[in-house]
Amino acid sequence: MSGNSFGRLFRVSTFGESHGPAVGCVIDGCPPGHLLDLAAVQAHLARRRPGQSKLVTPRDEADQVEILSGVETETGLTLGSPICALVRNQDQRSGSYADWKHIYRPSHADFAYDAKYGLRAWQGGGRASARETVGRVAAGAIAEQLLRARFSQISIVAWVEQVHTIDARAAIEPGAVTRELVDAHPTRCPDPATAAAIETAILAAKKRGDSLGGCVRLVVSGLPPGLGDPVFQKLDAVLAQALLSLPACKGIEFGSGFSGPALTGLEHNDAFAWQQTADGQRMTTTSNRSGGIQGGISNGMPIDLRVVFKPTATVLQPQASGDEAGNNVELQAKGRHDPCVLPRAVPIVEAMAALVLIDAWLCQRGQVGDPWPGLGGPVRPDLP
Amino acid sequence: MSGNSFGRLFRVSTFGESHGPAVGCVIDGCPPGHLLDLAAVQAHLARRRPGQSKLVTPRDEADQVEILSGVETETGLTLGSPICALVRNQDQRSGSYADWKHIYRPSHADFAYDAKYGLRAWQGGGRASARETVGRVAAGAIAEQLLRARFSQISIVAWVEQVHTIDARAAIEPGAVTRELVDAHPTRCPDPATAAAIETAILAAKKRGDSLGGCVRLVVSGLPPGLGDPVFQKLDAVLAQALLSLPACKGIEFGSGFSGPALTGLEHNDAFAWQQTADGQRMTTTSNRSGGIQGGISNGMPIDLRVVFKPTATVLQPQASGDEAGNNVELQAKGRHDPCVLPRAVPIVEAMAALVLIDAWLCQRGQVGDPWPGLGGPVRPDLP
Amino acid sequence: MSGNSFGRLFRVSTFGESHGPAVGCVIDGCPPGHLLDLAAVQAHLARRRPGQSKLVTPRDEADQVEILSGVETETGLTLGSPICALVRNQDQRSGSYADWKHIYRPSHADFAYDAKYGLRAWQGGGRASARETVGRVAAGAIAEQLLRARFSQISIVAWVEQVHTIDARAAIEPGAVTRELVDAHPTRCPDPATAAAIETAILAAKKRGDSLGGCVRLVVSGLPPGLGDPVFQKLDAVLAQALLSLPACKGIEFGSGFSGPALTGLEHNDAFAWQQTADGQRMTTTSNRSGGIQGGISNGMPIDLRVVFKPTATVLQPQASGDEAGNNVELQAKGRHDPCVLPRAVPIVEAMAALVLIDAWLCQRGQVGDPWPGLGGPVRPDLP
Amino acid sequence: MSGNSFGRLFRVSTFGESHGPAVGCVIDGCPPGHLLDLAAVQAHLARRRPGQSKLVTPRDEADQVEILSGVETETGLTLGSPICALVRNQDQRSGSYADWKHIYRPSHADFAYDAKYGLRAWQGGGRASARETVGRVAAGAIAEQLLRARFSQISIVAWVEQVHTIDARAAIEPGAVTRELVDAHPTRCPDPATAAAIETAILAAKKRGDSLGGCVRLVVSGLPPGLGDPVFQKLDAVLAQALLSLPACKGIEFGSGFSGPALTGLEHNDAFAWQQTADGQRMTTTSNRSGGIQGGISNGMPIDLRVVFKPTATVLQPQASGDEAGNNVELQAKGRHDPCVLPRAVPIVEAMAALVLIDAWLCQRGQVGDPWPGLGGPVRPDLP
Repeated sequence: MSGNSFGRLFRVSTFGESHGPAVGCVIDGCPPGHLLDLAAVQAHLARRRPGQSKLVTPRDEADQVEILSGVETETGLTLGSPICALVRNQDQRSGSYADWKHIYRPSHADFAYDAKYGLRAWQGGGRASARETVGRVAAGAIAEQLLRARFSQISIVAWVEQVHTIDARAAIEPGAVTRELVDAHPTRCPDPATAAAIETAILAAKKRGDSLGGCVRLVVSGLPPGLGDPVFQKLDAVLAQALLSLPACKGIEFGSGFSGPALTGLEHNDAFAWQQTADGQRMTTTSNRSGGIQGGISNGMPIDLRVVFKPTATVLQPQASGDEAGNNVELQAKGRHDPCVLPRAVPIVEAMAALVLIDAWLCQRGQVGDPWPGLGGPVRPDLP
Repeated sequence: MSGNSFGRLFRVSTFGESHGPAVGCVIDGCPPGHLLDLAAVQAHLARRRPGQSKLVTPRDEADQVEILSGVETETGLTLGSPICALVRNQDQRSGSYADWKHIYRPSHADFAYDAKYGLRAWQGGGRASARETVGRVAAGAIAEQLLRARFSQISIVAWVEQVHTIDARAAIEPGAVTRELVDAHPTRCPDPATAAAIETAILAAKKRGDSLGGCVRLVVSGLPPGLGDPVFQKLDAVLAQALLSLPACKGIEFGSGFSGPALTGLEHNDAFAWQQTADGQRMTTTSNRSGGIQGGISNGMPIDLRVVFKPTATVLQPQASGDEAGNNVELQAKGRHDPCVLPRAVPIVEAMAALVLIDAWLCQRGQVGDPWPGLGGPVRPDLP
Repeated sequence: MSGNSFGRLFRVSTFGESHGPAVGCVIDGCPPGHLLDLAAVQAHLARRRPGQSKLVTPRDEADQVEILSGVETETGLTLGSPICALVRNQDQRSGSYADWKHIYRPSHADFAYDAKYGLRAWQGGGRASARETVGRVAAGAIAEQLLRARFSQISIVAWVEQVHTIDARAAIEPGAVTRELVDAHPTRCPDPATAAAIETAILAAKKRGDSLGGCVRLVVSGLPPGLGDPVFQKLDAVLAQALLSLPACKGIEFGSGFSGPALTGLEHNDAFAWQQTADGQRMTTTSNRSGGIQGGISNGMPIDLRVVFKPTATVLQPQASGDEAGNNVELQAKGRHDPCVLPRAVPIVEAMAALVLIDAWLCQRGQVGDPWPGLGGPVRPDLP
Repeated sequence: MSGNSFGRLFRVSTFGESHGPAVGCVIDGCPPGHLLDLAAVQAHLARRRPGQSKLVTPRDEADQVEILSGVETETGLTLGSPICALVRNQDQRSGSYADWKHIYRPSHADFAYDAKYGLRAWQGGGRASARETVGRVAAGAIAEQLLRARFSQISIVAWVEQVHTIDARAAIEPGAVTRELVDAHPTRCPDPATAAAIETAILAAKKRGDSLGGCVRLVVSGLPPGLGDPVFQKLDAVLAQALLSLPACKGIEFGSGFSGPALTGLEHNDAFAWQQTADGQRMTTTSNRSGGIQGGISNGMPIDLRVVFKPTATVLQPQASGDEAGNNVELQAKGRHDPCVLPRAVPIVEAMAALVLIDAWLCQRGQVGDPWPGLGGPVRPDLP
């Protein structure tokens, strides 16, 4: 209830402050009997890890994950019980923050936390730090494994589409992007020319003590229709909650998004078309302005969304601010920071998507069963 | 769990299909002892009502609300028990839908519901219809009353900022908009010149059997800092869930939103500044690119967001589609529809905001107490 | 969160005060495509109805239920959307309560509600009245239908085992009791001799203006092993919550219950024994002191529990009490009341059991799938 | 949803298998700014610890708790963020269980878990082991501190009232029992003569390889009226869920409980009486057959309940059972076990009570505010 848990049947709770002893998560509701691929979990964490390139913060964290529960030690099978995944913090340098312990960093959560709780973990942002997302990525990696075991065609791929004013949108064909292409460059932009330009821009900003924002695109394909719940748990609504819950995220759009109103309804509607496939007839749409979701429920087309992250709030130049005592003061931050969060945001965005989707699947299985109608399951019964 | 409830301590469940006997809501967790202003609830419903102008669907519903529980009959005081608010459907014309009972309307939820459940309420979209929002508006009207009783300065105002390519953003000073200005024109665009252009565009689209989308802006001022919970229940994340749960909504942005990356961190950060007010010192920011929320928690500045609605999916011209039996067919819709949902979306957006905010307040009161630090409440205790 | 909802995937919210306009429930999460037997729902309500015999309150309520949503009107099929079931109150005589509007009735909830909320629905106990259970019985009737469709052998039978000091326990063979036997006598005690004695005792108490308590036994058979969740959602823990949530219920025991400690572990343990059945091998226990639940999870043996209800708090003789103003006063109640709630408690106990069980089933289906291992489903995979 | 979390605003999730790497809990929703007394948490764990006397299992666990998050390191103040408390398992001897890895231990959860999940943590019962309660006791210790800070008069005391047929009920005056008296004897029975008899009985059973059950009584005094929520979250219903969720617990009764029906309503009702106290007028009842709870809400009198625990299922003599392969076999258990769980159950019962009560308080504060009417807070407003 107090904000640190997410999901209904696959419920993830994260814990840990940026500069406390550890960060991690507890997953309640993991299906039993799944052979957990711990190396894959570690690999996801490595994609999120600080210090992986000169584009990101040099904080040095191995982010070695330890599974404390929920998995049978001898076999690696999930038990159906809570999985606690723990990562010890190692390279905290709380001292770096001591100089502005009493000053509210602009566009950070310091003031808001103090206003809410009456105190805050002043070292590195506490829970508001991106370090909190370690637990999300570990849980998301497990969720992705389970999804893959059920939906063999699933593909969850995010990438950096824009940094500052450098926009790769027109240069990238979404259906062709793979994780390998994304990871081929430390910017995680799959268009090489744009990637190079982004790298230059990030390094220049870093040198100036400045920072940049941008957009991440996410496409999930290989999912059946029928995922998501109506009204308040619409798949897009829950994805929006999931992604806006990420630090620095300021917006989201699905399918045509903010460009949608440029078209009229006739132009904008996605025409339906049955197609013959190897597995029988399958419903498709001839365009995907809906972004794969209609009425809050997946329609079988790729889920397609875009999120925007503001420029990193930590900059290393003087800024006007206020302190706890009510004085207007100048803040001169120093130390380690990400000049641009976008490259590291990519695996986090994918993790959140996996968490939303596995929960939608388990809830669908709970209420309707599996297979369900969209998978050739039972249909409206014949009545006398 | 199955999607029809929203909120934690102020929990709203809606029920009812578009063409079933009734729609409504149950509110669990309403604070007791509040003198319910039923006329105000009815007034909010009137702003959402179909048939209120020639710009919206002519479906004729009085939307007279009946309170079945939770309020002391003699006094009108809330009892702290569940409030059930009921609105009977009156002008259902299910017959209008009979012609395409077996055809999936493009960009509607028909196919997705069938894929999920194996059947659907084919008359008018069932739960996916905007008619479901009657319960939200009734609940939101009650939430707003309670918020006003606690935060006397609160102002929750939404308006139509854009329809099709007609954009009033530059013409409107957000801080000056009031509900009266918004309601002065049936388009609910507070800039008269733009309003007139929008009206013309909507009527033209209606005449063609076409439809238009657009953007709604929402500004909430008069709120203290400290509302919202960290991590997964961030105030912006929950607002995103709330608003993306509305029919036809395809995106949301807070503060600088998708324009944020055009600035660098130094340019984008909101500088803090203590200000002297009649009530003592108050923290402000000299810009509001954060949209009033930092780290997921309100910072005392106006909450400022924008949501986009796609053009109405119902259009009255032939469209390519498929039927339940697997045939690709042409659909010719007819009957009543909203050529543009934007004017009626305004009170619904406000209602969702009120529901998010009252829940955030009650959760804050539960965990931290009220007043809380941001209201001059207790602060970090002095330790020995 | 505020207490008026129950269940996770099959979530029931009740609303309505005893003397308000209506009582009812909303069910969120009902599986779709089920042909709702509305007559059966009405029949369950009839078993709970006041005025059904001279042993119960003469308040005259037809308790005609109206389904407002969630069911396809033409076919009666559930849509998967919220089912709102409404029963209008008809025979409220609020006037009867006016004399002690300001006096706290002993062993009623009046004082506690005032202490909590600062006001109360003083007419007939508001939400604390047994009238609230109308919504539970309607929802339970639907739950039972769904359970029966999935588990064809299921039997949910409760009966009156004891009233005052008249105890039929030794006279009744639990496995032989059917609803028909239970309903054969208005006391709902299936042993005719005890039933007659109980009837006499209730009528005598009624005549004196006094009241009686007693015990209800519940046996659920025909369920597979594997229902219920570990730790805090153990099947017995949730049944305990469900049944202690009934008005006047003061205790519960499972299997050997409070008699268990009279045996040592060796004597008390239920030995396991595989048995050959038509459907293959089935695990049984040679005794059932566990009451069908081990480690909080059903083991395939009958669920066997007993709940105790205190004597009805409303008695028609003078009692010492206090009023709202702080005076110690004498209360002389009058009007209609149940001299013994036991006969009417029987269908309510069954309804609560059905609600717990369907939720356990849907949650099992969500996390593990259906069929699950206890039904011959997947088992520990062979690993390389 | 899958059973491992408890509470609404003060939400505890436990994790860890009996013979896995660790056990622990995460608390979400802890109020901020509380100076955590870690030594007191450790002291509560010591009362629950195995190996504390010859009456309990000799498994040697120091149960040293580590706080990984949610507390400011320098000051020990709670941050309002999730508190993760971790206890490493040290004295696992999984080997002891290897002999019956494939045999279902009678009256244990082994079979039920296999039937549910298709596999189980066969070493020591996994999550069904009492070792899981480490996390509950750590969380309960924190909850108790917070309750004490708010309700200075609160006393939460449980004790062993009965073991096997040795019943101390008549010998103990509930109001006079303190934790010191309870802990004065390793049986945790505060009547010295009964305690000695119980000790003898437990040691004799241990020697025989047998086990004993019994009853724990819990009394909570010093609480105000108005705690608990109506209908499904009644204070007694939630306490019932909390306590029936403990391993080996088979029943609960409140106040008069199963003895209640021996009285008629007139005899049973608790008369109200206003009393003058130093703090003003206070409502009392002249008897407490309600057990301090009326209509599911505390009435200011002591909460008084009794729970029964079955004899420990692990006995060291041959028993008839079945194995995973479908054979009926004899099981000869060996190794360490508690011949009687009652002494160690006492702090666990207290912990569960504290968890229920703090959650009820925070929910009350959320919906109604604090102080609330029962504490002299706002009352029914005067209306025009």
